[in-house]
Amino acid sequence: MAAVSEEGFSHSTEVAVRFAETDAQGIAHNAAYLVWYEVARVDYLARFAGGYNRIRGQGIEALTIETHVRYLGAVHFDDRLRISVRCGDLRGARFRFDYLIERLTETGAEQVADGWTLHAVVDRETFRPTRLPAWLREAIELAEAGAPA
Amino acid sequence: MAAVSEEGFSHSTEVAVRFAETDAQGIAHNAAYLVWYEVARVDYLARFAGGYNRIRGQGIEALTIETHVRYLGAVHFDDRLRISVRCGDLRGARFRFDYLIERLTETGAEQVADGWTLHAVVDRETFRPTRLPAWLREAIELAEAGAPA
Amino acid sequence: MAAVSEEGFSHSTEVAVRFAETDAQGIAHNAAYLVWYEVARVDYLARFAGGYNRIRGQGIEALTIETHVRYLGAVHFDDRLRISVRCGDLRGARFRFDYLIERLTETGAEQVADGWTLHAVVDRETFRPTRLPAWLREAIELAEAGAPA
Amino acid sequence: MAAVSEEGFSHSTEVAVRFAETDAQGIAHNAAYLVWYEVARVDYLARFAGGYNRIRGQGIEALTIETHVRYLGAVHFDDRLRISVRCGDLRGARFRFDYLIERLTETGAEQVADGWTLHAVVDRETFRPTRLPAWLREAIELAEAGAPA
Repeated sequence: MAAVSEEGFSHSTEVAVRFAETDAQGIAHNAAYLVWYEVARVDYLARFAGGYNRIRGQGIEALTIETHVRYLGAVHFDDRLRISVRCGDLRGARFRFDYLIERLTETGAEQVADGWTLHAVVDRETFRPTRLPAWLREAIELAEAGAPA
Repeated sequence: MAAVSEEGFSHSTEVAVRFAETDAQGIAHNAAYLVWYEVARVDYLARFAGGYNRIRGQGIEALTIETHVRYLGAVHFDDRLRISVRCGDLRGARFRFDYLIERLTETGAEQVADGWTLHAVVDRETFRPTRLPAWLREAIELAEAGAPA
Repeated sequence: MAAVSEEGFSHSTEVAVRFAETDAQGIAHNAAYLVWYEVARVDYLARFAGGYNRIRGQGIEALTIETHVRYLGAVHFDDRLRISVRCGDLRGARFRFDYLIERLTETGAEQVADGWTLHAVVDRETFRPTRLPAWLREAIELAEAGAPA
Repeated sequence: MAAVSEEGFSHSTEVAVRFAETDAQGIAHNAAYLVWYEVARVDYLARFAGGYNRIRGQGIEALTIETHVRYLGAVHFDDRLRISVRCGDLRGARFRFDYLIERLTETGAEQVADGWTLHAVVDRETFRPTRLPAWLREAIELAEAGAPA
């Protein structure tokens, strides 16, 4: 798929790298990035769509069906990271999030990772695919329409 | 509470330290030990009590209500560990596991941690305390009666 | 050891429970609490002692040699938690942190966990115990002297 | 990139899904798959290339620079998984692993995920790219030459 553009992100979340997220290479472990993606996604849904718990409360789950991370530079304990996120490609039961992760420094921000995740909406009981609810689709489209170009 | 005796463990499980479980100190992170406790506990219940999923299938959950770890020596990536476990102190809704963690070397085993966890049986829907089912108590007592003294 | 008093905490840190920190019981996993302890400890050291990286930069490591958690109530995804922390018992190479974890609600805060951790200062190369540096001891004593009684 | 073929895997490793790896959806968390990849990769290197610690001992690190996972079916606590792995695309400082994750059942195995990771060899001190050592390249090529077609 296309590379992530540095423009057009509708939301961002900041985290500090936890010591527990580092490994014996002295840098953040590759699996931690998927957790940071999720933190940013949860914040996005809270801001624009009433929150992940609202989605779950309506009898549906959003399953993660694909994840991708490009690691562009090592990240260390206590680094301040900004995870920018946008949502798109809403088709039937599926939607996609794009991410850009930057390290915040005194003089600015440098990109350290990017990637995307793909999700499918399923019925919470049967885990069978179901259409994205109209209210959720509209909330996301509204959020993205207002995102900086 | 009393220190863990090196005798009388009814079961043990082996794990290798995963790279993801290390941190930037170059050793296993302190939270990983609680996961290894759990791996050993799950194996114990599978061997003696029909498995954790059997317990969950009967409408009850075993919550962890207290954990304790003494770290006696640093543990590194790929170290082979033996987690010995025994269960006791079955009172009403509660039971306790004791643990001993050893590093396996070519010439033997050296103790690297010990500790214990306390658990309460609750109703799976309400999370309210409920008595330990008789079959589970009996399975554990039988297992421990046969443990090496 | 004595129960943790609700008074006298010199510092607190807030976290939201991450989805990755929950487990199939629908609540936060017991190992996540040790990570939250660490997040609060790191914040404490940043605020009062120049930061954990300053300690590491001086050729010493603070190893975790004992951890204890009492889980007093289940914690769920997206719950807002306040981890209060204080440091004391500075003796030779050792020091201790006490913790109180509360869930923040619209009307106040309810205690959901407490506990403590014990740490030893070691030389970063040899991992042998070494005395707590005077500047670190003084920084902690100063911080605790100013804590609300 | 091309989909992972089900043939030609030179190595496989088995894990059981840990309770700590599940989340409040009742299934394994998406980040756990990257840890299982790593467990299989470490086993591969131990079997064919003297082990990851041998690589690290020679002053180099293998950094993860890209990860990809396709989640094809939910995986639950205590499921037995087989992670098949092969290594290829050795160019300059880079190499790639492909993965296939299957759930083992009484009657066979069903595919639950696949994907790949990309790695770069760097100098352990400077983190600058360095060529894959000849012995490591040869060990991997030998391993893959002998893999079932």
